[in-house]
Amino acid sequence: MKRLLFLLALALPVMANAQMSNDDVHKYDHTNQSQYRNEIAIPGFDGYHTLKCDFHIHTSFSDGSVWPSVRVQEAWQEGLDAIAMTDHLEYRPHSNIVKAGHNESFNIAKEEADRYGFILIKGTEITRGKPLGHLNAIFIKDADKLDVDDPLKAIDIALEQGGYIIWNHPGWPDNKSTMYPVHEELLRQGKISAYELYNCMESYPLTFDWYKEYGIAPMANTDIHGPVAIDYADRERWVRPMTLVFATERSEEAIREALDARRALAFFHGTLVGDAEYLTKLISASLKVRNLGNGRMEVTNISDITYTMDQGDALYIFPAGKTAMVPVLSGELKVRNCLYGNGKNLMYSFE
Amino acid sequence: MKRLLFLLALALPVMANAQMSNDDVHKYDHTNQSQYRNEIAIPGFDGYHTLKCDFHIHTSFSDGSVWPSVRVQEAWQEGLDAIAMTDHLEYRPHSNIVKAGHNESFNIAKEEADRYGFILIKGTEITRGKPLGHLNAIFIKDADKLDVDDPLKAIDIALEQGGYIIWNHPGWPDNKSTMYPVHEELLRQGKISAYELYNCMESYPLTFDWYKEYGIAPMANTDIHGPVAIDYADRERWVRPMTLVFATERSEEAIREALDARRALAFFHGTLVGDAEYLTKLISASLKVRNLGNGRMEVTNISDITYTMDQGDALYIFPAGKTAMVPVLSGELKVRNCLYGNGKNLMYSFE
Amino acid sequence: MKRLLFLLALALPVMANAQMSNDDVHKYDHTNQSQYRNEIAIPGFDGYHTLKCDFHIHTSFSDGSVWPSVRVQEAWQEGLDAIAMTDHLEYRPHSNIVKAGHNESFNIAKEEADRYGFILIKGTEITRGKPLGHLNAIFIKDADKLDVDDPLKAIDIALEQGGYIIWNHPGWPDNKSTMYPVHEELLRQGKISAYELYNCMESYPLTFDWYKEYGIAPMANTDIHGPVAIDYADRERWVRPMTLVFATERSEEAIREALDARRALAFFHGTLVGDAEYLTKLISASLKVRNLGNGRMEVTNISDITYTMDQGDALYIFPAGKTAMVPVLSGELKVRNCLYGNGKNLMYSFE
Amino acid sequence: MKRLLFLLALALPVMANAQMSNDDVHKYDHTNQSQYRNEIAIPGFDGYHTLKCDFHIHTSFSDGSVWPSVRVQEAWQEGLDAIAMTDHLEYRPHSNIVKAGHNESFNIAKEEADRYGFILIKGTEITRGKPLGHLNAIFIKDADKLDVDDPLKAIDIALEQGGYIIWNHPGWPDNKSTMYPVHEELLRQGKISAYELYNCMESYPLTFDWYKEYGIAPMANTDIHGPVAIDYADRERWVRPMTLVFATERSEEAIREALDARRALAFFHGTLVGDAEYLTKLISASLKVRNLGNGRMEVTNISDITYTMDQGDALYIFPAGKTAMVPVLSGELKVRNCLYGNGKNLMYSFE
Repeated sequence: MKRLLFLLALALPVMANAQMSNDDVHKYDHTNQSQYRNEIAIPGFDGYHTLKCDFHIHTSFSDGSVWPSVRVQEAWQEGLDAIAMTDHLEYRPHSNIVKAGHNESFNIAKEEADRYGFILIKGTEITRGKPLGHLNAIFIKDADKLDVDDPLKAIDIALEQGGYIIWNHPGWPDNKSTMYPVHEELLRQGKISAYELYNCMESYPLTFDWYKEYGIAPMANTDIHGPVAIDYADRERWVRPMTLVFATERSEEAIREALDARRALAFFHGTLVGDAEYLTKLISASLKVRNLGNGRMEVTNISDITYTMDQGDALYIFPAGKTAMVPVLSGELKVRNCLYGNGKNLMYSFE
Repeated sequence: MKRLLFLLALALPVMANAQMSNDDVHKYDHTNQSQYRNEIAIPGFDGYHTLKCDFHIHTSFSDGSVWPSVRVQEAWQEGLDAIAMTDHLEYRPHSNIVKAGHNESFNIAKEEADRYGFILIKGTEITRGKPLGHLNAIFIKDADKLDVDDPLKAIDIALEQGGYIIWNHPGWPDNKSTMYPVHEELLRQGKISAYELYNCMESYPLTFDWYKEYGIAPMANTDIHGPVAIDYADRERWVRPMTLVFATERSEEAIREALDARRALAFFHGTLVGDAEYLTKLISASLKVRNLGNGRMEVTNISDITYTMDQGDALYIFPAGKTAMVPVLSGELKVRNCLYGNGKNLMYSFE
Repeated sequence: MKRLLFLLALALPVMANAQMSNDDVHKYDHTNQSQYRNEIAIPGFDGYHTLKCDFHIHTSFSDGSVWPSVRVQEAWQEGLDAIAMTDHLEYRPHSNIVKAGHNESFNIAKEEADRYGFILIKGTEITRGKPLGHLNAIFIKDADKLDVDDPLKAIDIALEQGGYIIWNHPGWPDNKSTMYPVHEELLRQGKISAYELYNCMESYPLTFDWYKEYGIAPMANTDIHGPVAIDYADRERWVRPMTLVFATERSEEAIREALDARRALAFFHGTLVGDAEYLTKLISASLKVRNLGNGRMEVTNISDITYTMDQGDALYIFPAGKTAMVPVLSGELKVRNCLYGNGKNLMYSFE
Repeated sequence: MKRLLFLLALALPVMANAQMSNDDVHKYDHTNQSQYRNEIAIPGFDGYHTLKCDFHIHTSFSDGSVWPSVRVQEAWQEGLDAIAMTDHLEYRPHSNIVKAGHNESFNIAKEEADRYGFILIKGTEITRGKPLGHLNAIFIKDADKLDVDDPLKAIDIALEQGGYIIWNHPGWPDNKSTMYPVHEELLRQGKISAYELYNCMESYPLTFDWYKEYGIAPMANTDIHGPVAIDYADRERWVRPMTLVFATERSEEAIREALDARRALAFFHGTLVGDAEYLTKLISASLKVRNLGNGRMEVTNISDITYTMDQGDALYIFPAGKTAMVPVLSGELKVRNCLYGNGKNLMYSFE
């Protein structure tokens, strides 16, 4: 009977049907919203889909505070397309209670992901003090094999498994975004493929140009430890950072291909950072213009990202999902919430 | 100088540019949201656009309490596509103060409509006690000419002008949806082309089948008198009733063509009433299905209308703009918020 | 019968009862929210009530776009305690249509105010170009008598009627907050008793010290012309500016007494400006502290105003209506959203 | 260093200070809302405080999916005053991974509770099939001691420890609210002190009179397994059920005293169920009346519970935190959302 209960408990979050009321019981199952997913509207371009991803996630199997299956439920519900499970290899403060290998949190979450048809990427976090700091290895096959003394060896093992290395939060915990010789060497060897210019609740402006200087992908990830509703509790959708990946389809393979091609932007607190070409294409795909023929134009923003621009003394706000009426705009506008480098705002022209 | 001030005042609502702050003045012009329009997502079908219309509107020129230009600002801002100005011919309680002919409120509003590129339909309300009651004449040319003693004569004059007659709120004010001989005669003659099964804040269930029994278009209109934010103040988008018109394009002519072909549905408080064919096509255009291959399917509702269905003991909610996960559904479901007659719920099947 | 209809129409906004549904008609009268008032929580102090007031209001009788009764409905509904009707004497662009004396808009609104038990103050706006600019005369008896050629004479007539003079938007329309000799003279004579440091959607930082330099009351008023839901359409409560008046009771007389004693603060966009003593007392009345005895304290903000403070590198936000947990705070904190002069932030200490 | 990291991780949720931005790092720590608590406004009466409690809570130590500390964070953040930790004794599906005794989840959560100054009650759930079903033992001292074969013995051990027994979800899982002989015997012996008439997402109308028939306290508890934001994800405050306890102060002892005196109401989905006296007093404490002297009265609802009443054909809604204007009401009104038994609505009179 316990087994039956267990199955029922697991099944609950993905069943949308509610038995209706009778004299004996009134059911309000529809109030359980785990069966409802917010859709985040961000259009694609050039045939690519814009996938909303978070490549840095913890559970109670390392130092987080939720069971792995919760990560899938949260991410699906919030409208993400993919997450990577990246529990620490070395830092497991609950290990006196939670007894499991390094692949277990992924395996548990994977069962849930399959229920939702959700993309779950296997990963782990190689966790050392500075200078090296923390690095995520994702797209790996066996996390246990990376649990070795030498972190550079762990990186090599990950790469041999087909892994992909992200340099996490370069400015944490000392608030200095220092690139040490070890990073320069790893970058030179092509072993680091991406970095977080935004992590959790902080951004590192001095790193905003690294994506092009080093040919790596820019990322914004949560590094989440608590439930998403606590760590980003006001539920403003954009408070949760995400990495936008421009992929040929919604699949793990397509995400990997896009990351290898560095088709990604970091998105946090309403701000986008990365390649000017992608920023421009994303805006063009989002803002639809209708010239009214009376000196004014309507700009309909079909995306969930609000764009704010200025030109001379004038400020123009194009709210997410709304239409703004503005004078017919010509020439370049400075986009306040799009940066292609530290202090470098995208200049945008309505054609 | 007064002239200049006047122009400035009129221009304000349609200028989105805000001078930025300096030492002397800080401007917050972006907080004036008259320059922002909500977009209501309701997809079209069969090549038709779904236009959101309100064919019953008053101003302070009859017994309303706002200047005509406000009606355009409100409607544009709320995401409507067209409204008809229908001030009473006979009931003008402010006439000791507001001195103007019957076309004046339209003319004032039309100036504003042209600024917004908004569709404004000329109309008026022929206002008598029961049995005849109230009728809107829209698509007319000169409202002054309808101000005659005999209301049946007024109807004929409207029709001679190319007008279109709507029977307003059949159940008001006596809470009886009585069809009197005068209506039967007008219907027989083809002079009444539409009726309100919902008006202001009340619906008339006994009339829910009339659209097909008499070959007329079903409508839900506001009959609004106060500012929309007072009469429908909780700002839940769907509290404001609207008539959905399935038109070949967004133009006054296309609306007329669609109404003549009775391609319309009444929409109020989340409920749609009208032809089963249109209801079915609207749902199909709104709900996108993805079968997960594990006994479940995702249903993404791309519209702003929430659909609620049941089958046996199970209740299924497909929230506006969200994705619901449900078991793979086969067979017919009863759609709670879609009626093709009094007490007649649409039955819907996912293909 | 028309008279009956008229009475019905007027009565509608203040009737909260809805006839329930039967077979013939379903009523949704509860969706008309004109019968519901938001309560704005701002505590009083020293035995004073904090009244939320707007002393600058227009209607379609001058250059506004709503009927006077609407101003009462809006203000009551939004939680204000009092407004002053201040249609322009000289600028009446609708006067070819709207034929009425200068007291008529007040009289119409007063009937509505009496239905709501709402405080409505009689006023008018003396409207000239710079240097004099615009001045509101409120607490007057007969606006018609102020319609004279010499604006200084109009001021004297207002004062003879027991009026109170407000210098409106000193920085409009030239974005220069210039005090001209005429103002210095009027201030010297004690004829100007208040000024707007915030008007409509702009603030005048250079005037933020005037309240104490000249012994006048600081004000933030809307100068509203359109419906409040259009001019401040995103419905964030604090977007509508207001003048907070610390009065012995909720009555017109008490407001006047408080204004004469200059017990007022300007409140706009979450920012309070005025006397440091009132700012301090308002914060103390709003923030309730509970020391947890473990190095932390809970600060419960019982008001609807969010306070933001910093000290050294730390930022502390005390959200409206919520409890924040912070370290036990000692010493002075800089209150970001409270100014007692231009660029002069209040320093606040938790006792 | 790992120890340091661990302390940092634990401390994060209860620190409200954010280092401000510099060139190197921009911090957005204020977006972590674990430091902000919603305050739920429900007034007390007769000198009692109304405490918001949830006496049925699970964690990943039994079949839940969050770490115990999360339960404290969630409850504090949502504005609850107390929770009881009640992991199953017998049903622990994660026990192959999570290795711990029955007191461990309480102990971990207690550390967090002490950081927040939050009331955490020690408990456990005795979990059998029907007829006995599930019972919570709260206010116990040692949960390990209750892990015995005979559930009736476990109840006795709990009572010897000073425990308090709640009969959980009588209508689950068979949708039949059957009282079996074992319950009648336990009730006769005074061993069951409370029962859940609402659990998780379902209510048991047939039990709504039991509180007075058997002299036990009515409760509405969550029985929560997932993160609160998933199980009650639309974040409407009232979707989370709670047991209202009328206590002399905010302390564990006062809660116990109030429960022993059966001063409690069940609250779920906006509906209150329990003793008519408490319902009446709660409404009187919540609704403040001001007679306008013109046939109308203002009713200000200072609570966060909306009350809906009807009388004859009229419906009156008193929205949470708002003022409603209604005719002066005399005689009894039927309160739709207050029940003192199955199908028995409270009748309320404004004095």
